[in-house]
Amino acid sequence: MYDLIIIGSGPGGYVSAIRASQLGMQTLVIEKENLGGTCLNWGCIPTKALLKSAHVYQEILSANNYGIIQTNPPQIDMPAIVKRSRDVAAMMNKSIEFLFNKNKVSLVKGKAKLLPGNKVEVKDEQGNNSIYVGKNIIIATGSRARQIPSLPIDGKYILGYRDALILTKLPQNMVIVGSGAIGMEFADFYSSIGVNITIIEYLNRILPLEDEEVSKTMERIFRKKKINVLTSSEVIKSEINNDRVNLTIQSPKGTQIIETDLVLSAVGIQANIEDVGLEEVGIKTNKGKIDVNEYYQTNIEGYYAIGDVINTPALAHIASKEGIICVEKIAGLTPKTIDYQYFPSCIYTNPEIASFGLKEQEAINKGYTIKIGKIPFTANGKAKASGQTDGFVKLIFDQNNDKLLGAHLIGENVTEMISGLLVSHNLDATAKDLLESIHPHPTLSESIMEAAASSHNEAIHI
Amino acid sequence: MYDLIIIGSGPGGYVSAIRASQLGMQTLVIEKENLGGTCLNWGCIPTKALLKSAHVYQEILSANNYGIIQTNPPQIDMPAIVKRSRDVAAMMNKSIEFLFNKNKVSLVKGKAKLLPGNKVEVKDEQGNNSIYVGKNIIIATGSRARQIPSLPIDGKYILGYRDALILTKLPQNMVIVGSGAIGMEFADFYSSIGVNITIIEYLNRILPLEDEEVSKTMERIFRKKKINVLTSSEVIKSEINNDRVNLTIQSPKGTQIIETDLVLSAVGIQANIEDVGLEEVGIKTNKGKIDVNEYYQTNIEGYYAIGDVINTPALAHIASKEGIICVEKIAGLTPKTIDYQYFPSCIYTNPEIASFGLKEQEAINKGYTIKIGKIPFTANGKAKASGQTDGFVKLIFDQNNDKLLGAHLIGENVTEMISGLLVSHNLDATAKDLLESIHPHPTLSESIMEAAASSHNEAIHI
Repeated sequence: MYDLIIIGSGPGGYVSAIRASQLGMQTLVIEKENLGGTCLNWGCIPTKALLKSAHVYQEILSANNYGIIQTNPPQIDMPAIVKRSRDVAAMMNKSIEFLFNKNKVSLVKGKAKLLPGNKVEVKDEQGNNSIYVGKNIIIATGSRARQIPSLPIDGKYILGYRDALILTKLPQNMVIVGSGAIGMEFADFYSSIGVNITIIEYLNRILPLEDEEVSKTMERIFRKKKINVLTSSEVIKSEINNDRVNLTIQSPKGTQIIETDLVLSAVGIQANIEDVGLEEVGIKTNKGKIDVNEYYQTNIEGYYAIGDVINTPALAHIASKEGIICVEKIAGLTPKTIDYQYFPSCIYTNPEIASFGLKEQEAINKGYTIKIGKIPFTANGKAKASGQTDGFVKLIFDQNNDKLLGAHLIGENVTEMISGLLVSHNLDATAKDLLESIHPHPTLSESIMEAAASSHNEAIHI
Repeated sequence: MYDLIIIGSGPGGYVSAIRASQLGMQTLVIEKENLGGTCLNWGCIPTKALLKSAHVYQEILSANNYGIIQTNPPQIDMPAIVKRSRDVAAMMNKSIEFLFNKNKVSLVKGKAKLLPGNKVEVKDEQGNNSIYVGKNIIIATGSRARQIPSLPIDGKYILGYRDALILTKLPQNMVIVGSGAIGMEFADFYSSIGVNITIIEYLNRILPLEDEEVSKTMERIFRKKKINVLTSSEVIKSEINNDRVNLTIQSPKGTQIIETDLVLSAVGIQANIEDVGLEEVGIKTNKGKIDVNEYYQTNIEGYYAIGDVINTPALAHIASKEGIICVEKIAGLTPKTIDYQYFPSCIYTNPEIASFGLKEQEAINKGYTIKIGKIPFTANGKAKASGQTDGFVKLIFDQNNDKLLGAHLIGENVTEMISGLLVSHNLDATAKDLLESIHPHPTLSESIMEAAASSHNEAIHI
């Protein structure tokens, strides 16, 4: 009999488990694959390792601009790049194992199925079944790549993100379908190391979840990198012929066929809610996601759900926070609930993208009278010194009370700059607060101060 | 007759001029050298350009770790590295000229001398004298390298920071005297590109202005880089012999002689207050700095001073902020004055250092009961993925009200993370505010959230 059973050890599950243990709960985690879930093993972490290798490669190619002479061109060792990425993921696995031991979190390996009466049945690799009982049960089974009928993932010609992480032989050409964070990061990675990339996006702009100016700027930068971008375009058929993929693409201009070596399907994710026992327990779902309240309780007492299986943004840091709130509520604390209008989001392309809160159009649609502070990195000394002047800082303020409503950044290192803005927002920051705070020189973050100043017509460097 | 005359166009002067113009003042800037002062021409900006080149060189040397094969070792082209650094400075010059034109700031090139009655005499390069009258005059003449008698800068064997920025032939060995920001950045730069470096620090630790744990960590990292560090050591004599410098060093262990190719004297700065006409006008100074009040007014009405010539931290961003406050006060606004306990400071070594506010020992000395939140970057997924796990985030909180008193960071990219913390401090942030705010995964900045959590014993990853 446990105080808490958690199904899944991704960033939702493992963080919940450790927090629960801190709060004195006897906690069991059930995991059918590797500790850390998609994020650590097939998502956030291994992609960052790949992108670091691409970054190093690009730095070498541009070394002459910085007074470093390279006589021979650098060579890509794909097996070594992939091995490093897998090693980083494995190291993260180990660290979760270490944290579970340290926090006395119990772990059972196997496939879990919910049963009524707060029970979970686990089938291990040998096919043995065990039953565990928990006062509370958190479903944190995450998600997998979504598939569309016209593009069935076969792992050889048509890849999902898992396949794309362990490709040890580079194709000449690759088509990436979908231009969200996953599609864009793979596009940037494979393009950086020499693959000809075509992006196909169903909507009328890439990065459809970002502020429109960010999308436009990124599209321009991607085109400069010779990445082919097709928007308002849809894959209606895919065929494998002679070791090649033929994609039939429909766009406003008509139908065309693209022949390519490989396709990556990055059209979103699908929650892992099948075979979990939801029906047996009577847990309600809606459009493929589990229904929960603001403390992540399902309709059945004692059963909770967090992360990619519920209808909130499918991001690791959201899952972790949901887990902490869920567990603290179970423990009788009164955690602050999440305002899902304001959460950070990062894309690790070159340049990077980071944002939180309301986009320009979204703020207008919600009825705000807004003012915008925007500064290009071409007006920033640090950006000039490091030779990375692409992008901008765009801040959205409420005209009525000067308060920060959202931030949309594209540029070098902006993923490290967004959390300070979100904390400021949470502390009710105004443009005046930001522009009055001394920002160190020379940093890219000075552009935040200048963007705030520009919303007051007080920017110095534009 | 101008509303405002500013002597010096460094980050104090030029920012003041543009802000004054925004506020409707007829403004004249007098500059005897290049626009932008030390910061743009001989400090912040060109050093960052050099460090970028060193960074590229180091990335190439470690490329094999990232699956990028380099058959030939990279070569250093010092003239090209220096040229790029100078080009970046020149580009920044141009941009200030552009901003002056755009903002209708007048510019006179020449050496200024104050006269009583709100007058300034300017001698131009041809030796012609002109007199300008301003309702208000700001002295922003900045500083130069301080010299110590035992180490006279000759520009050939014993260098100041200006010489060290334009060295086109690398020595085998270099001794750097002084381990503040300037000394440490040059030590890191020259060591990174292959020069054997010895640092000599008079006090008992390097980086004496930083939190003690930061100093210790950096000393360990520098020793790993084979940089020789001598603390509690003083240069008591220097002699040039056969194209070599012999330094006599006194330390607790006794006296030793170090023979080296070059010496960089980085023992601080000295305000440019000579020949400015302070005595003629009757402006009071104290220990080599101009006396001012919290709005930067000197003892003589209509005369102000900002930046390195007054007794405040000699940092570009402090000078700029002082200039803005000074000018806004002149314009009749009521700007918030600077609390000099809380300002950001950055050092661009590898790893970087960034801090603001109270250090651990300083907070204790001031009578605070503190709690500390500290997280090493070894517990951070992004740091692992990019292979840069040196360093930590250390936050100092007031035990009584949970408020953030200071932050001391060492690690990759921390210079972009400090401003968010300072803004948070200015908004009265508590540890709880920081730990409750969702930080995006995977970022280095998550360690800020975790450090705050650790001060509440709620950190997940340690």
